[in-house]
Amino acid sequence: MSRNSIPANLKLGFLGAGQLARMSSLEAFRFGIQVAVFSDRTENEPVQFMTPYSTSGSFNSVDDMVAFAKECDVITLENEFISSEILSEVQEKSGTPIYPSPKSFALIENKLIEKQTFEKAGIPVTPYKLVKSESDLKEFGGTHGWPYLLKSSKGGYDGYGNETVKDLASAKEAFNNLGGNKKRDILAEAFVPFTKELAVQVARNETGTVVYPCCETVQEDHICVAVLSPAPIKDKYQKRAQELAVKAVEAIDGKGIYAFEFFLTKDGVILLNESAPRPHNSGHYTIEGCITSQFENHVRAVLGLPLGSSKMNAPSVAMINLLGTHNRPADTDNINKAFETENGHLHVYGKIQSKIGRKMAHYTLLGDDLEKTYHKAKESTKNIEI
Amino acid sequence: MSRNSIPANLKLGFLGAGQLARMSSLEAFRFGIQVAVFSDRTENEPVQFMTPYSTSGSFNSVDDMVAFAKECDVITLENEFISSEILSEVQEKSGTPIYPSPKSFALIENKLIEKQTFEKAGIPVTPYKLVKSESDLKEFGGTHGWPYLLKSSKGGYDGYGNETVKDLASAKEAFNNLGGNKKRDILAEAFVPFTKELAVQVARNETGTVVYPCCETVQEDHICVAVLSPAPIKDKYQKRAQELAVKAVEAIDGKGIYAFEFFLTKDGVILLNESAPRPHNSGHYTIEGCITSQFENHVRAVLGLPLGSSKMNAPSVAMINLLGTHNRPADTDNINKAFETENGHLHVYGKIQSKIGRKMAHYTLLGDDLEKTYHKAKESTKNIEI
Repeated sequence: MSRNSIPANLKLGFLGAGQLARMSSLEAFRFGIQVAVFSDRTENEPVQFMTPYSTSGSFNSVDDMVAFAKECDVITLENEFISSEILSEVQEKSGTPIYPSPKSFALIENKLIEKQTFEKAGIPVTPYKLVKSESDLKEFGGTHGWPYLLKSSKGGYDGYGNETVKDLASAKEAFNNLGGNKKRDILAEAFVPFTKELAVQVARNETGTVVYPCCETVQEDHICVAVLSPAPIKDKYQKRAQELAVKAVEAIDGKGIYAFEFFLTKDGVILLNESAPRPHNSGHYTIEGCITSQFENHVRAVLGLPLGSSKMNAPSVAMINLLGTHNRPADTDNINKAFETENGHLHVYGKIQSKIGRKMAHYTLLGDDLEKTYHKAKESTKNIEI
Repeated sequence: MSRNSIPANLKLGFLGAGQLARMSSLEAFRFGIQVAVFSDRTENEPVQFMTPYSTSGSFNSVDDMVAFAKECDVITLENEFISSEILSEVQEKSGTPIYPSPKSFALIENKLIEKQTFEKAGIPVTPYKLVKSESDLKEFGGTHGWPYLLKSSKGGYDGYGNETVKDLASAKEAFNNLGGNKKRDILAEAFVPFTKELAVQVARNETGTVVYPCCETVQEDHICVAVLSPAPIKDKYQKRAQELAVKAVEAIDGKGIYAFEFFLTKDGVILLNESAPRPHNSGHYTIEGCITSQFENHVRAVLGLPLGSSKMNAPSVAMINLLGTHNRPADTDNINKAFETENGHLHVYGKIQSKIGRKMAHYTLLGDDLEKTYHKAKESTKNIEI
């Protein structure tokens, strides 16, 4: 059922108060919607500077979150750190709908169930196995080759919760580091010799499904440093990745915005790597790069409003992640070149404290030629210090 | 001096908490800047839902505003309801810079001084005279013809503070209505038989000046109902209006964003009608319509950051003001068609209460052909009720 109305005082609640909730909030505000935020941090978080409705509590406390949810009309998530069981209880006890739904979320919060769900839907995933013992670790290396990856089945992101293992000794160590000896489920995943890492955002609700262009994510040390859209790949791979992303969101009956990360192999095979039931770093370029940003479609989707077009506003878009360069208060310095570059757009997340490598800001540049645009975006931001 | 930095915890303070401050705040947030707001209303105002830093007080109380300003790094205005003298005192006592500066503002807050300032700078204005007596009223009609306009020299907007007078009797009545008998300065202004009403935004600070395309404002009963950009006029009129707008902002040494409204006469003469030292309704279309919106350039300008390009993102843009259709809580109904129209962008201001004729929201549509885009924008919004 489509909403067709924005009632006065409609309030959207975010569990989590970081930059993703912040950028979504900006779109909610555009529609006259109020924003409430629930944070589990002691330090002031980005969204807390943007609303008088700010609550702190624990992501493990149903009671804390029920009290918060009762004050909101719809709840959405900024991260994957709350279990679907707790979310389900919060939804039931508060009477406030949560999107992505706890049911959808249950299908992807655990990497094992996620892979099984997507495989069942006919989506190729990287070869994997639940490993429980030394012999499992050994066998996986024997079958799929060394090195391979060990992943904690829950709670990993941006390379945290993942380790590359090159032999049995490092595999045993990583297994314990990741909590395998504390009964945490550990997944072994074959190392895929990919040529590109890709991502596709999909927005979906009862009014329809909107798929974004397939973009390339440029990673350094498992951290995304840049996103290029559309990805410089053959049209057939573009379409294939988009098809798989739509299949994936349907497989979990997703409502909201989702991001799917893929590997493109040397042989032209596209494998689903990871999924996120929320706005994603790979989609920040859509703020200026597409008619409707991932954040706007996120807000539209969870509120049951018709979705907007994902068409691009320029032939090429490059997005640069601006990671902390210092451990200090979050001053953003040497920004003039970024401001002076035509069609360059700086976004600063309003964090209080900078840390080396922390995601503090990003910069999007629209252009005609992808490579030139990427080069220019790097040039415009290379002196920025945060 | 250009800033070249956004320090952590930089706080921009708005005197006034309506939709203009709201849309500016969204751009401040994008840059990681905090927003504080000072409101003179008892009802919750649009920006107050967007910040934990909200203060109430009187625009006549220097003390109230000094306390507020001390908590901010830069202060800006959302309206023209505070006198330049008070602003000057607030700036001096708080030590916080105010832009537009009280000095610039002093040159336009009074319609008589405004006209003299612009005339001196070589900008054609509509024929006017300060009227003080019945014989002045009579003489002005004799010289410039009936009907003509009487305007209060301070505090008017959107047709308030203006009256059209058709003969001496109505002139005397209007003179008293507008406060002429209470020593308020009243200006007589000749009625200009214009073919179009135009507007131009200009952003200016120590880093440079950026002028926007000249747009057409479509008025009904002195209320702007739509804006079309670029205005469907000859190129030479486009350029002339832009030149005059730049001259005008230089004449008052403006820092910030300014809007200048013009009449285009049958004879192809462009006359300056009104000016506003702030974001203006005529520039709402720039949010999606231009690379850098009036609100973003406002924030950049008052903070001393380099200004962004005013180039248009599409050949044609139409903006429709969505005025209150009911006296009721501000529910925005029948919005699906607006959401479904590709490249249509709805903005709802988050007011609590709707009133018939009150500015509640607006809708911007990007397209190729101006007339078709305007028609489509009206079709997409005609069923909306607020």
